[in-house]
Amino acid sequence: ARPRVGYYFTGKTNDTQILEKIKKLSVEDFQSIPVVVDRNSSVYDAVCAMFLEDVGTLFVVDQNSVLVGVLSRKDLLRASIGSKDLQTLPVDIIMTRMPNITICYKEDSIFEVAKSLIEKQIDAVPVVRESPNGLEVVGRFTKTNFTRALVDIVQNKLY
Amino acid sequence: ARPRVGYYFTGKTNDTQILEKIKKLSVEDFQSIPVVVDRNSSVYDAVCAMFLEDVGTLFVVDQNSVLVGVLSRKDLLRASIGSKDLQTLPVDIIMTRMPNITICYKEDSIFEVAKSLIEKQIDAVPVVRESPNGLEVVGRFTKTNFTRALVDIVQNKLY
Repeated sequence: ARPRVGYYFTGKTNDTQILEKIKKLSVEDFQSIPVVVDRNSSVYDAVCAMFLEDVGTLFVVDQNSVLVGVLSRKDLLRASIGSKDLQTLPVDIIMTRMPNITICYKEDSIFEVAKSLIEKQIDAVPVVRESPNGLEVVGRFTKTNFTRALVDIVQNKLY
Repeated sequence: ARPRVGYYFTGKTNDTQILEKIKKLSVEDFQSIPVVVDRNSSVYDAVCAMFLEDVGTLFVVDQNSVLVGVLSRKDLLRASIGSKDLQTLPVDIIMTRMPNITICYKEDSIFEVAKSLIEKQIDAVPVVRESPNGLEVVGRFTKTNFTRALVDIVQNKLY
């Protein structure tokens, strides 16, 4: 009998293969530098930091550089409208705090993190690393990072 | 001679085919409902609309429902910090206006629109349709829409 050569069935199409490749891309290859503020900062200082650094989300840290909170543009806009005294109002009062902070690790799949961005209706998550004092912020992963990653993949494959 | 059957070479792998499919997905299948404010609204009213509707970008229209401006959270946060009189400050003063507004049409590829979101460093674009009076706003396409679309594609293909 003629040997059956040329191809064999792996149970997966190439289509599935590229999607699996996308699923395995990890946060560390696409993350941005985190922008942090001290938990004793005022809301006014946080707004300034957001504009100076041009980010949509700030991470709040304690004296050991451990993550204690997250501030979105929405949080700061709400505070700016509602309060008269932004220079004395500490970010501590208005930030989202544990256990309500969604975090990720640099080894995580960008696809899984993108899923949680959508589910939690947030724009960014801190990339953290465990330290003796708690979770240390080492990066920032946003919808922009995910969008840029996918645009790059589609583009490089086609041109 | 034995006929050559079974496969022929199209010059494209299946990998390229799925990426081309992604490239052809159109805005109308993934867009959101637009949230608009009148050009005579105050900044205060715009901030309220942003919170009530829970969106990151508002589109400003004239009396004919024609697009005249765009307001981001960043625009409104800047105004809230810088001005004391948000109830009388009209959005007209602080909005981004033509020709600096990036627009798209419902037939556009989500990939091309995502590229311009990244390049222009914006979160959302209005989906418009031409009318006798100008560009009418019919939708909103955001980084969230793009992220959700890609997450859905990867997910549905794998499970």
